Amino acid sequence: MGKLYVVGIGPGGIEHMTLKAKQAIEESEVIVGYTKYIKLVEDLIVDKEIVQTGMRGEIERCKKALELSQNKIVSIISTGDAGIYGMAGLILEVKEENHIVEIVPGVTAAVAGAALLGAPLMHDSCYISLSDLMTPYNLIKKRVELAAQGDFVISFYNPRSKGRPYYLKECTDLIRKYRHGTTPVGVVRNALRDNEKVKLCTLCTFCEDEVDMLSIVVVGNSNTFIKEGKMITPRGYVF
Amino acid sequence: MGKLYVVGIGPGGIEHMTLKAKQAIEESEVIVGYTKYIKLVEDLIVDKEIVQTGMRGEIERCKKALELSQNKIVSIISTGDAGIYGMAGLILEVKEENHIVEIVPGVTAAVAGAALLGAPLMHDSCYISLSDLMTPYNLIKKRVELAAQGDFVISFYNPRSKGRPYYLKECTDLIRKYRHGTTPVGVVRNALRDNEKVKLCTLCTFCEDEVDMLSIVVVGNSNTFIKEGKMITPRGYVF
Repeated sequence: MGKLYVVGIGPGGIEHMTLKAKQAIEESEVIVGYTKYIKLVEDLIVDKEIVQTGMRGEIERCKKALELSQNKIVSIISTGDAGIYGMAGLILEVKEENHIVEIVPGVTAAVAGAALLGAPLMHDSCYISLSDLMTPYNLIKKRVELAAQGDFVISFYNPRSKGRPYYLKECTDLIRKYRHGTTPVGVVRNALRDNEKVKLCTLCTFCEDEVDMLSIVVVGNSNTFIKEGKMITPRGYVF
Repeated sequence: MGKLYVVGIGPGGIEHMTLKAKQAIEESEVIVGYTKYIKLVEDLIVDKEIVQTGMRGEIERCKKALELSQNKIVSIISTGDAGIYGMAGLILEVKEENHIVEIVPGVTAAVAGAALLGAPLMHDSCYISLSDLMTPYNLIKKRVELAAQGDFVISFYNPRSKGRPYYLKECTDLIRKYRHGTTPVGVVRNALRDNEKVKLCTLCTFCEDEVDMLSIVVVGNSNTFIKEGKMITPRGYVF
């Protein structure tokens, strides 16, 4: 009798993985994942069967993982949390009744990035992916504008790629309609893994050329401030 | 030379804590936290100095933790992630230049709850706290309405307390102006710890009396559906 774990491995380094995620991977006979993510956990998977796939082909990857899980213990891995722009949704969509699936949550990219920036997510916040592969850009812009109006802290996932170099700038410009130019903006690349880079700027001084697909961008709300190089969104305590 | 770790212990059980969070607690000589959270990690803190405080008094708790950290290794703990409605912001606000602080991220309540519900957070989503202790209720309602208009998946933190029993119902009613009554709603109480309770319903059949401060409420977007008892927000793959 097999089983499929859908594992969020966290930001990348093994130390920010949960104990349960590590245990699921160790218990598994087969590990399925995008080649780059497999590399992040290679110390844990010596002597296991590995099914690596390229960046696209998610549906095939999920079907393969479910099929293998009928007789074996399998982990399909995502970075961050598997339920936030990860593999959990697709697995449950493709899953048939006889498959056994357990989702193992992890530390998502915005949370990992926030810990390095300071504490930007302390008040109401939202996640928006700027990838338009499956979401019309008009809907993305509408969400950005409503989130700006609502004074949400905004975390951008998949903020910039070669195919859409201008979206991020257009979206931060939308936010500027509602927020002061001195609003802090944090950019974290490779949060909590090798080649980590953390940068703080403002809506005015923000340069989108420093951002790529491995980055997360966090735009503060109207109360966010910078103190000793850290970005802080106050919860509202008075002292 | 001391140090302060601001640790998100995750949903509660030790297995969903990160390796780094466990290591920080084990390395610490002093553990500071709300009595209920201290109890969740008691197996890790035998023979350590414990500073427990009640529910309020957060500013004093943070000052005490920072003071102790000048000569000792100290962990101040929050459930979930310390940077999402946790202690990280206040610590950085109160911190003075000579204090050394490291924030250790964790699995936040919405992510833990989502893993049990299925995969409701697979598309753009937001977190809103319904606590009006430090946020005017009018601003909370404005955010709920804008998030509903933007078709965000909405996770409610601190959804209901004795002092404000009607807010949650008023806010789900606001969402109904923009979303169909059959929109799935998930309620998780004590996610991934003892006495866990998971319930799926819809905006129509939602009963706020089943919700308390230990619960998280996730309202789906216009595409969220239920399959085999799991709540799924599709990312948009066509198959």
